[in-house]
Amino acid sequence: MKYGARNHIIGKVTEIKKGTLMCQINLQIPADSLMSSVMTLDSMHEMDIRPGDSVRVVVKAVNVLLVKE
Amino acid sequence: MKYGARNHIIGKVTEIKKGTLMCQINLQIPADSLMSSVMTLDSMHEMDIRPGDSVRVVVKAVNVLLVKE
Amino acid sequence: MKYGARNHIIGKVTEIKKGTLMCQINLQIPADSLMSSVMTLDSMHEMDIRPGDSVRVVVKAVNVLLVKE
Amino acid sequence: MKYGARNHIIGKVTEIKKGTLMCQINLQIPADSLMSSVMTLDSMHEMDIRPGDSVRVVVKAVNVLLVKE
Amino acid sequence: MKYGARNHIIGKVTEIKKGTLMCQINLQIPADSLMSSVMTLDSMHEMDIRPGDSVRVVVKAVNVLLVKE
Amino acid sequence: MKYGARNHIIGKVTEIKKGTLMCQINLQIPADSLMSSVMTLDSMHEMDIRPGDSVRVVVKAVNVLLVKE
Repeated sequence: MKYGARNHIIGKVTEIKKGTLMCQINLQIPADSLMSSVMTLDSMHEMDIRPGDSVRVVVKAVNVLLVKE
Repeated sequence: MKYGARNHIIGKVTEIKKGTLMCQINLQIPADSLMSSVMTLDSMHEMDIRPGDSVRVVVKAVNVLLVKE
Repeated sequence: MKYGARNHIIGKVTEIKKGTLMCQINLQIPADSLMSSVMTLDSMHEMDIRPGDSVRVVVKAVNVLLVKE
Repeated sequence: MKYGARNHIIGKVTEIKKGTLMCQINLQIPADSLMSSVMTLDSMHEMDIRPGDSVRVVVKAVNVLLVKE
Repeated sequence: MKYGARNHIIGKVTEIKKGTLMCQINLQIPADSLMSSVMTLDSMHEMDIRPGDSVRVVVKAVNVLLVKE
Repeated sequence: MKYGARNHIIGKVTEIKKGTLMCQINLQIPADSLMSSVMTLDSMHEMDIRPGDSVRVVVKAVNVLLVKE
């Protein structure tokens, strides 16, 4: 598997919060950092994603914003 | 500083690759993971971002794609 | 605060519409123009955002679409 | 013309900066605010966009990030 | 109508799924392929979009991810 | 392979246009439709993508804009 994206790490699903149309998947990535993804419930069902699953977390570099605080 | 985004971690700039209009900022985040951001050179100059700088890396959850391999 | 994004203006929160997972924040920007942002309820709570608040409205230039009508 | 996006205002093209593949279009929107869009040169040519043109500036609400400074 | 985006095809609305804040519009594009868009209910009402409508489906090239399986 | 995105079709690479930092990949999808993706040259090299390759074209539904002309 090769991705046309600069950011693609492995994460572990820790929690799934379901809305009426969308859901929010919380993940643990290395060093105990946390990430979240929002997708449709349709995609969630199609992926058959569950807490404990290992998934690839992919973000295109153009969608990464840097802020100098 | 509070962000309207689920993903916002601190990263350290390791490399800046300049194109003619855009640039690519490579970063190190905890656990020696790597991330990249692409922005305009105008934004890079406005931020005055340099290798070694600590920056906030922000990604909205809707722009995070999960893949089950 | 310096942002790696070409578009970053100050807006005033006029309305918050809550869904079950996401919320929609309506804003007034200069010249009585209106903008909207959609984020997770989690982010909304973390930001403790309320009507009347001044916030920075940030959009990366790659996410701006132009149309010639 | 009706857009499936919460943010769609009229802007006037003030400057076009060309890279080798992409270009950056700078715009003036009401109240002398400035915005920028990045697109491919291919799209720029297809639109036949030039300084002085009036264009619709469209941003989906999910791509709008709010920050409380 | 000219779009500052590389991807803009005509689709036909086949289904609208409403959430509390957002909705999901399913579409049929040429060759019986299917696509989906998620937008706010506010935008859906403003567009007055209904099953059977023909609409332009627009995606900026930077938001298209390629994967080599 | 299962994707957390509503839009994921197979395309065939027809052309690769290289800039100094980014590249544009043009693709043919079913029914002779065309699509394009923009990514970094780094991702292009990592994918080892070439004209004639079959790739998965993935777009999250939140990044699909509908327009009623």
